[in-house]
Amino acid sequence: MRFFLHTHPQLMAIPMRLQSFASAQKWEGGVSMVQGASRGIGLEFVKQLLEKNGKGHVIATCRNPTKATALLELKNQFAERLNVLPLDVTVESTIEESARSITERYGSLNLLINASGILSIPSVLQPETTLSKVQKSSMMLAYEVNAVGPILVIKHMWPLLKVGGLLGTDRDVAVVANISARVGSIGDNRLGGWHMTKTISVEFARKKDPIACILLHPGTVDTDLSRPFQRNVPAEKLFAKEFSVQKLLNIINNAKQRDNGKFFAWDGQEIPW
Amino acid sequence: MRFFLHTHPQLMAIPMRLQSFASAQKWEGGVSMVQGASRGIGLEFVKQLLEKNGKGHVIATCRNPTKATALLELKNQFAERLNVLPLDVTVESTIEESARSITERYGSLNLLINASGILSIPSVLQPETTLSKVQKSSMMLAYEVNAVGPILVIKHMWPLLKVGGLLGTDRDVAVVANISARVGSIGDNRLGGWHMTKTISVEFARKKDPIACILLHPGTVDTDLSRPFQRNVPAEKLFAKEFSVQKLLNIINNAKQRDNGKFFAWDGQEIPW
Ligand SMILES: NC(=O)c1ccc[n+]([C@@H]2O[C@H](COP(=O)([O-])OP(=O)(O)OC[C@H]3O[C@@H](n4cnc5c(N)ncnc54)[C@H](OP(=O)(O)O)[C@@H]3O)[C@@H](O)[C@H]2O)c1
Ligand SMILES: NC(=O)c1ccc[n+]([C@@H]2O[C@H](COP(=O)([O-])OP(=O)(O)OC[C@H]3O[C@@H](n4cnc5c(N)ncnc54)[C@H](OP(=O)(O)O)[C@@H]3O)[C@@H](O)[C@H]2O)c1
Repeated sequence: MRFFLHTHPQLMAIPMRLQSFASAQKWEGGVSMVQGASRGIGLEFVKQLLEKNGKGHVIATCRNPTKATALLELKNQFAERLNVLPLDVTVESTIEESARSITERYGSLNLLINASGILSIPSVLQPETTLSKVQKSSMMLAYEVNAVGPILVIKHMWPLLKVGGLLGTDRDVAVVANISARVGSIGDNRLGGWHMTKTISVEFARKKDPIACILLHPGTVDTDLSRPFQRNVPAEKLFAKEFSVQKLLNIINNAKQRDNGKFFAWDGQEIPW
Repeated sequence: MRFFLHTHPQLMAIPMRLQSFASAQKWEGGVSMVQGASRGIGLEFVKQLLEKNGKGHVIATCRNPTKATALLELKNQFAERLNVLPLDVTVESTIEESARSITERYGSLNLLINASGILSIPSVLQPETTLSKVQKSSMMLAYEVNAVGPILVIKHMWPLLKVGGLLGTDRDVAVVANISARVGSIGDNRLGGWHMTKTISVEFARKKDPIACILLHPGTVDTDLSRPFQRNVPAEKLFAKEFSVQKLLNIINNAKQRDNGKFFAWDGQEIPW
């Protein structure tokens, strides 16, 4: 069922410039975007969002859609409920292009999950554990992908999230969920995600936007990213991605306006700043 | 007075690879390096280090020595006690070149002050106060100069600081003092300096290096950097650089091994992490 602007009284309050979004309508089950969806935690979010919610639409973005075979298989199964778009967080034009495409097709976003991230890339990016091995190129690349990238994605999806928040879902607010890049090396910045989420949440609050920006810690999850470090993780502390994402989706689905700016662990515990 | 390796019993404990430093000798008054010394807080550190300590040597680095007129005037006055070297924190080879030059000339460092930093550069870098104006290029440049730069300087001066710490001064340890870049904009990372200082201090402690790495907050100081924002600062809270640097030098001179990893405000108050 779709509610159009002129038939939905709640929408009268939407400012003119938002009404100009071609298709500002309420989508049953909501419109969710998962950024960094080709593998790992992001891919699992796409799956569970499609499976658990019979109606919602999902935009899955990744660097290379033609090579994202797992996403293409889901596309066969979920047809027009799944949209796969190319997005590389280091190429701002691909973020802008995705925003344009979502604006045309949906006109709003109820959820944005930033799940992209790098920790090590063989022979390019090594997580430095000692000062004497710190590489400038590694630090710059990690910052570009892990810190700047998600900020630019939020920047360009912001107008769509405002509309989504005003249109309302079961949650009343649109949610931006950043998966925390927990990185302990010298070059990288463990606090970057915290600072980003906090600063952006302050801006959402200041503008009275119906958006909650939260930071999520997934635990240590069995993915390509954690593989080089799993040897030191006791078996019971290494989560299957199905388990971690189920827990995180619970937190996202229950998020309220007052959670804006908060940091939650996979078990729902709030982590103090 | 100079103590040479073979005459100084304390130095017997220095590992062979450090003994290869051509001129590992104790310099009376110590050897201090001020990085970012052309203007502002850095320049004031150079002045006070030369004036207050009748014997110590100072290496002042800046991007463009030939244009650093204030430093060249000090050079006239203090002759061979002041060495001016070119160093741009965004060009790693200039950092390596400085390290080589200091190794040849002095063989050790007792103090490294990182005083470089940018907050805004007209028409290049604007401190963003709203998400919609965040620029990728500004974020990357600020990170390169304010976060990566000082880390690379510490990386390359580390061997010299170890020798300086072992040779001993009035302080017993070599000191690395990072002037905190307090930046409140979205793109920038207020916590970067904290995280960097903390991580590096942990490494110094782990290696049992005789070096204390501290973070210093100078207050709001009347320099080019703060000028665009001074309108909102009450007069009594806007410090002359002479005042702030005097206070910070006091903290540095009294620094002990146990201060490694700590964050101090200009008035000596420890700021909790
Ligand atoms: N796994 C854990 O234990 C763990 C713990 C704490 C936090 N996290 C965080 O959770 C996030 C996801 O981790 P994961 O375990 O799912 O990692 P993963 O399996 O390695 O997946 C990383 C994802 O990020 C994408 N990506 C990399 N660079 C990108 C770019 N420039 N633009 C767009 N997408 C890009 C990858 O796409 P390609 O397929 O194109 O490479 C891939 O889809 C990361 O931020 C990570 O730090 C993970
Ligand atoms: N002033 C304050 O109120 C205040 C408050 C808190 C923290 N701080 C921090 O204190 C530090 C010094 O600030 P300031 O007030 O003295 O600023 P300033 O007067 O603007 O001086 C900045 C210095 O940094 C140098 N610099 C800039 N980019 C560089 C690069 N790529 N490589 C090497 N040097 C570079 C500049 O050299 P050029 O002459 O070549 O440009 C100049 O010497 C900064 O980190 C700042 O964030 C200042």
